[in-house]
Amino acid sequence: MTQRPLMSEDEARLTAKGRATRARIVQAAADLMFERGVAGTSTEDVRESAGVSNSQLYHYFNDKNRLVRAVIVHQTQQVLDAQQPLLGRLDSFGALEAWRDLLIDLQQQRDCRGGCPIGSLAGELADADEEARKLLVTGFARWESAIRDGLASMRDRGELRPDADPDQLALVALTALQGGLLLTETRRDVAPLRAGLNAAIAYIRSHAA
Amino acid sequence: MTQRPLMSEDEARLTAKGRATRARIVQAAADLMFERGVAGTSTEDVRESAGVSNSQLYHYFNDKNRLVRAVIVHQTQQVLDAQQPLLGRLDSFGALEAWRDLLIDLQQQRDCRGGCPIGSLAGELADADEEARKLLVTGFARWESAIRDGLASMRDRGELRPDADPDQLALVALTALQGGLLLTETRRDVAPLRAGLNAAIAYIRSHAA
Repeated sequence: MTQRPLMSEDEARLTAKGRATRARIVQAAADLMFERGVAGTSTEDVRESAGVSNSQLYHYFNDKNRLVRAVIVHQTQQVLDAQQPLLGRLDSFGALEAWRDLLIDLQQQRDCRGGCPIGSLAGELADADEEARKLLVTGFARWESAIRDGLASMRDRGELRPDADPDQLALVALTALQGGLLLTETRRDVAPLRAGLNAAIAYIRSHAA
Repeated sequence: MTQRPLMSEDEARLTAKGRATRARIVQAAADLMFERGVAGTSTEDVRESAGVSNSQLYHYFNDKNRLVRAVIVHQTQQVLDAQQPLLGRLDSFGALEAWRDLLIDLQQQRDCRGGCPIGSLAGELADADEEARKLLVTGFARWESAIRDGLASMRDRGELRPDADPDQLALVALTALQGGLLLTETRRDVAPLRAGLNAAIAYIRSHAA
């Protein structure tokens, strides 16, 4: 579920050196957009930060929308990778609690700044850019299905009741996580993230066999 | 808790006509920023949409930051008012369920667009503008404490157990609501909002006496 996706067509036609340059541009854009938002980041900012020329930038991304889309795909992968190996194996209450602790830790490490890299992009782009919105839906779906896979294992092993719905439970967990991250960013305090995830885990536990 | 706050000092020193002009500017700014984001809204856009001159706009708001802050206060009041009278009396499971249905309805009425007016501002401003962040914290706190007051009544009447913590439960509800609204906006589907609020209500119910 969280394995690295196949290269996009754009990437596949590049040489190794071209892919490295493209990756440097996307990384620079992702960092700037995480810090300042998409609207607050110009392609000129990205060009400067990545240390590439105008024609190089244009060669890889002929408009800002294409760059934004590459950033969404990149940030989705980063977010999922940062939760590994736990996210790939959320198949016990112990694993769910360790995952909660990891998510809280990650926020504390960055002083509760920035919120969720995918959630922030969603808040800014969902209504403004339909192509971006679809990529964000896909990103959230990858995250949700990684959670769901672990819960489905728990049900299959009889730890959750047969009527527990892993899809619904995973959606509840992702909802708590997104709301928790937004309130944690606003309050600069992990209490909302902790409260939301604790409640989500308690809700999952209420479906234990 | 959700009563209209006292006028700000800025408002108090204005004539009735001045207050109406100021309100028209804030409403225009709030609408534009809800639709396009703060970064995507220029003071020129606001000036045009409100039908005021440059010097009038400058008279009330001498920079965009002041206007943004007035928009946060305005949107907080709008969001709380839109949930009345239910939000002022969330003191039974029936009321909590009616509130959930109202929130889902409101999203359906706007085709799941826009997300939460406060949450969207928080996602865009929390890291960028410390003064705005504090106003957003206050806005969320007003919302949270309206939820908490109802839950505290339920505990005082013995419907929730004495060890139920209305502060924590209200924070869980607000977290589920914010995550649900963000995912609902992204997916254009109320399923995440419904799942999050249902789980939050079930979690509150698990504290029933």
